Amino acid sequence: MPTFGTPADFQQAIAELRTLFPADRISTDPDVLHVHGFSLNTYHPGAPHSVVISVEGTEEVSSIVKVASKWKMPITAYSGGTSLEGGFAAHPQGGICVDLSGMDQIIKINEADSDLVCQAGARWDDINETLREKGIPLFFPLDPAPGATIGGMIATGCSGTNAVRYGTAKAEWFLNVTVVLPSGEIIKTRRRARKSSAGFDTTKLFIGAEGTLGIVTEATIRLAPLLPTNVAVAQFPDVRKATEAVGEILNKGVPIQCVELCDDVFMHATNNYGISTRKYPERDSLFFKFQGSPETIAESARVVDEVVRAHGGSGFELAKSEKEAADLWADRKAALFSGLALVPESKGWSTDVCVPVSRLPDLVYETKKDLEESGLVSTIVGHVGDGNFHSLILFKADKELEAVRGAVHRMVERAIRLDGTCTGEHAVGIGKKEYLYEELGTGTVELMKLIKRTIDPLGIFNPGKVVAYPVRLERLQFSDTPDICSFIQMTVQHSLVVKSIPEE
Amino acid sequence: MPTFGTPADFQQAIAELRTLFPADRISTDPDVLHVHGFSLNTYHPGAPHSVVISVEGTEEVSSIVKVASKWKMPITAYSGGTSLEGGFAAHPQGGICVDLSGMDQIIKINEADSDLVCQAGARWDDINETLREKGIPLFFPLDPAPGATIGGMIATGCSGTNAVRYGTAKAEWFLNVTVVLPSGEIIKTRRRARKSSAGFDTTKLFIGAEGTLGIVTEATIRLAPLLPTNVAVAQFPDVRKATEAVGEILNKGVPIQCVELCDDVFMHATNNYGISTRKYPERDSLFFKFQGSPETIAESARVVDEVVRAHGGSGFELAKSEKEAADLWADRKAALFSGLALVPESKGWSTDVCVPVSRLPDLVYETKKDLEESGLVSTIVGHVGDGNFHSLILFKADKELEAVRGAVHRMVERAIRLDGTCTGEHAVGIGKKEYLYEELGTGTVELMKLIKRTIDPLGIFNPGKVVAYPVRLERLQFSDTPDICSFIQMTVQHSLVVKSIPEE
Repeated sequence: MPTFGTPADFQQAIAELRTLFPADRISTDPDVLHVHGFSLNTYHPGAPHSVVISVEGTEEVSSIVKVASKWKMPITAYSGGTSLEGGFAAHPQGGICVDLSGMDQIIKINEADSDLVCQAGARWDDINETLREKGIPLFFPLDPAPGATIGGMIATGCSGTNAVRYGTAKAEWFLNVTVVLPSGEIIKTRRRARKSSAGFDTTKLFIGAEGTLGIVTEATIRLAPLLPTNVAVAQFPDVRKATEAVGEILNKGVPIQCVELCDDVFMHATNNYGISTRKYPERDSLFFKFQGSPETIAESARVVDEVVRAHGGSGFELAKSEKEAADLWADRKAALFSGLALVPESKGWSTDVCVPVSRLPDLVYETKKDLEESGLVSTIVGHVGDGNFHSLILFKADKELEAVRGAVHRMVERAIRLDGTCTGEHAVGIGKKEYLYEELGTGTVELMKLIKRTIDPLGIFNPGKVVAYPVRLERLQFSDTPDICSFIQMTVQHSLVVKSIPEE
Repeated sequence: MPTFGTPADFQQAIAELRTLFPADRISTDPDVLHVHGFSLNTYHPGAPHSVVISVEGTEEVSSIVKVASKWKMPITAYSGGTSLEGGFAAHPQGGICVDLSGMDQIIKINEADSDLVCQAGARWDDINETLREKGIPLFFPLDPAPGATIGGMIATGCSGTNAVRYGTAKAEWFLNVTVVLPSGEIIKTRRRARKSSAGFDTTKLFIGAEGTLGIVTEATIRLAPLLPTNVAVAQFPDVRKATEAVGEILNKGVPIQCVELCDDVFMHATNNYGISTRKYPERDSLFFKFQGSPETIAESARVVDEVVRAHGGSGFELAKSEKEAADLWADRKAALFSGLALVPESKGWSTDVCVPVSRLPDLVYETKKDLEESGLVSTIVGHVGDGNFHSLILFKADKELEAVRGAVHRMVERAIRLDGTCTGEHAVGIGKKEYLYEELGTGTVELMKLIKRTIDPLGIFNPGKVVAYPVRLERLQFSDTPDICSFIQMTVQHSLVVKSIPEE
């Protein structure tokens, strides 16, 4: 178990940091500390940081890491503040919050190579807006919630509605990342070629690591051609029919950019809240976004309409204008707001499980039944092409929170039982840590812990997130033979002696 | 520097292994040892293994690893035997070769989820042939040279001609891998959901690691819809014009599956060797493979023809029959054979550098000039959409080999200078190890070594490949403060004492 510095040590660290940063970029104001430690819509235990520092460059992050190491003070990166699993919550003992939200610049656009270098605090929607303003017909296709930053997207291994076409943050959208390691050292994981087989994939090491192995400060991101799109909605007899239609559409290779499953409750909530003027049939529905030339979209729509009908669906029709398409998509994208409006003055807990696509109907049915039996109201919206769905479980009083927590727990257990994952795109943070052993097996989690311990031996980088620390040392028995040849083998010997250390 | 067992220890290990495996699956026959240690077309130093064992399952690999650990004997995986960088060469001191080529079974096809579970020795072309025979309209789109296995494709982080559309092995084609770690433990890195944000990306840890961190025995692979394709060839005034045309085509989002740059010498070699009856203009050319419905292909071809003409290209015409398309593509795919036929009785050294696409023309021009000045004959074929190209440098006598080696060295240096990589898709093996520091910087390489040392503390997994071992310990200074709190900090203390250990 890592031993952090004492409160007095932390005060010394803060005093040192005050000598390094101007007063207007380092704060211990309780309101500032609170805002940087708690995200909206999160019901996990949280804590305020001890100090928040707004950074302007990679070297500054490195200088903070050196102070944090010296005083053994936790250090957590913050940028967009949109995490749903407590990813940037402070450690209960406090720590340093490195606020990268001001590092939001695009450093260089390489249009001919369809890539772009930017700082970690840049928001994906701002990047796409900048490209649009400059008339560059490219975009960055990872689309989590608006406001998410490149750094946070890397940290969570995010995706979004475009993943069915473009894959996730774990695909090849990040050509390289610049990272400050727990040693304070600054590395750049790769050069700018689109592909490379030069050694271990250290870029990927930081994607999904939630700032526990290093703090990403810059990235080179791939861009995709910005294509015309159009939108259509269709209704289905049930979720299974809708899912089967999607399976067939995908296996036919129809070039769709998105396909989103919205359940009957979601459609009711949308009619209730509605951005567009359309009143939808309140049935399980699919929202499609097509991409390509008008000819390609027309042909895709023809194929999809056929498949929809073959699976008992109806009502499929392409939007007739750009405005109509934008309005329909806005109805889908307003999930949080239309959901919350369903129960006045409610709060919502957003879930995020993912299973093989063919198992999605079972997961949705069992979940809906469970929620109903628990007396909970929820909308469901799914990235059905990926087998990923979010339910927004509504509640008003804190006394309902335990019922919500129980339902979320059962949903995760169900997803894992169906060969799925506790988190499709929101990461582990605090909220999903308890499920890793069950989902991945002891060996895989212990491998993660071994990597964590090796790269961050003091355990100060976003402690308590992703994996508990330290590794259970009894798993480090590499050999039956004693070996005293070198320091390396010596550490193995130690691990043979120390059989177990309690988990954090 | 890892200390391996003595020759006597290795004999003990082999004796123990003989008690575990039937005689017909364990061999010390010199011919067998040689075949498993040397790949064709590789001019790196090699060595024969001490023993070769044909394995039939994951547990068997684990049992071998335990014997290897006990006697500190190097252990190297072998399957397809197509490596170009000495990836499966034995360590100079010998070792155990684990032959997975018999583990070539497809375990389960999940058509509705478009994925498939298989053993590591399965070949990608056999997998696609099986899907075709079963009438399942899906395929695995990574297409390195025929004969490459899933295990080798993971080890090298491979790609191929389809990468411009489907990305590489480092994208999301491997949903999970089953791995035997150096501890002998068997882990499965993930479940079968298409995406997951559950912790570090341990699947990616093994992709491109060339068996130095574990031996992959099974994988779940994503499949893509099998779409109709057609092929066309066009000629250009020069490489730059051709590359610029490709950039424009890609940025327009035209759905091409492949685009391959073949230089004038390649086209001459093809006319000389020719599978198809077509005689091509002997100029720098692009081979296109389009995909989609006939309507989509026709539309794509129209757009591409326009762009080709705008960049001074000519001769663009879609193949008029499936046979013609297959023949044209076979001309491109016969690169090795048509190249070798150019100089009777020659051998070829195949290179593999990759740069940002916009820099490909400079790289090609400088390389062609250098080869000419060196008196070397070479064909060039490039995955131009990825900025990756291979030159097949021809030579006859061993005395020419040094000139080839020099030219390859300068080509790599040039690629790195152009913000590229020493290897686009063939991995590091022995051949590219010397370039990692220059390409990636000290910190990134040392991070790789740190990971290597941690996961394989005895240094017996495919030693001498990818990164030298062990890590330079002076890089392990995490903190200025002494710390004696726990075993973990103790190891850090040790690292502060041991300032440097010579490289292997």
